[in-house]
Amino acid sequence: MIKDNYKRIPKHIGIIPDGNRRWAENNKLEKHKGYTHGIKPGFQLYEIMLEYGIKEATFYGFTQDNTKRPKLQTQAFVKACVDAVEILANRDANLLVIGNTKSSVFPNELLKYANKRVNFGRGLININFLVNYDWNWDLNYAINGINSYKNKKTNIYDHIASVDISRIDLIIRWGGRRRLSGLLPVQSVYSDIYIIDDYWPDFQKEHFLNALDWYQTTDITLGG
Amino acid sequence: MIKDNYKRIPKHIGIIPDGNRRWAENNKLEKHKGYTHGIKPGFQLYEIMLEYGIKEATFYGFTQDNTKRPKLQTQAFVKACVDAVEILANRDANLLVIGNTKSSVFPNELLKYANKRVNFGRGLININFLVNYDWNWDLNYAINGINSYKNKKTNIYDHIASVDISRIDLIIRWGGRRRLSGLLPVQSVYSDIYIIDDYWPDFQKEHFLNALDWYQTTDITLGG
Repeated sequence: MIKDNYKRIPKHIGIIPDGNRRWAENNKLEKHKGYTHGIKPGFQLYEIMLEYGIKEATFYGFTQDNTKRPKLQTQAFVKACVDAVEILANRDANLLVIGNTKSSVFPNELLKYANKRVNFGRGLININFLVNYDWNWDLNYAINGINSYKNKKTNIYDHIASVDISRIDLIIRWGGRRRLSGLLPVQSVYSDIYIIDDYWPDFQKEHFLNALDWYQTTDITLGG
Repeated sequence: MIKDNYKRIPKHIGIIPDGNRRWAENNKLEKHKGYTHGIKPGFQLYEIMLEYGIKEATFYGFTQDNTKRPKLQTQAFVKACVDAVEILANRDANLLVIGNTKSSVFPNELLKYANKRVNFGRGLININFLVNYDWNWDLNYAINGINSYKNKKTNIYDHIASVDISRIDLIIRWGGRRRLSGLLPVQSVYSDIYIIDDYWPDFQKEHFLNALDWYQTTDITLGG
């Protein structure tokens, strides 16, 4: 197995596929045309993650804040997310879509995958897809609509909207920005963060391999 | 003013002063001897931040997880935090200590600065100091001991233990590790993150200037 060549394989990888609009501009396309070029890289990475024995991956689809962008762009990234899921439905994954389904911008096509994990094929990897996600919505879920936590020993992680998403070991961000942009604040507290300057549509296998090589050099302390 | 030479000055900087133990080992000292060498850099940085018009800074002192380390180390970093605050008390800052005061490891000397901002001298900068902090404790504060949020419109940020700490614009971490290690998950969701490979006791003014130069090249989108 390839994975035997590595001392550490992250169990759960977070993917921030940024730079689609900047890629489009560099390629003399209108900004919104970039998103559709982000689908193929996602499946290239999916295949590589299967090859390397990754058990769980979270893709940052779009956020509620993102939907304040021009309508043409919003429509384009929503469509790219729907198209990606429809392709994934013919592969071998367990899909969990997490996001605010109560907003009109949440795509109807994805409602059947929202907030419960759905099996496709042989279910070789857990894929989490953040669709109309918002960090504040995720955390507020723990404090809104509840009766009382009084006198109960309880932990916020058990009550957030993304409770079914595990802690992230490694976050890989494309597009050069060095920040988390609200990606799962609870699950990312101890994540190692690797930044790739290339834009997401320019994904190459080497990006993943470089991240994995770097990950070998980090230690896990979980704050200890 | 120096700050007029910059397009963007971060309002609030988060400081992760990591690498004290590795610095000690490199300098043929026992690991726990490193922490006391972290105090002088803190005040060098404090002076530079005043010079550059920074309004608020959060220093990551120690976490509840850190106190699982050997006793000699724990005693050393607790003492370094107390010593730092006693020096700061003769400077010009508004200090807010945030951390779990109910644990025996929280230093008695700092109780009077805990969970309320205390003015020193001319109060030129807000300094937040995380002492026996824990991200989970911070967030759980919002859901424990409350009666009911039912039917109330509420936001988690208004209820966490660190509610009086503002959103962080720029996080600078020394010691080469590329992660947040549980630093204020709510306030750091949109923070730009700059990593310095040198260990914290080897602090140089150039580190700060490099971070500030890099910060000029980033854009603020807050997810938009």
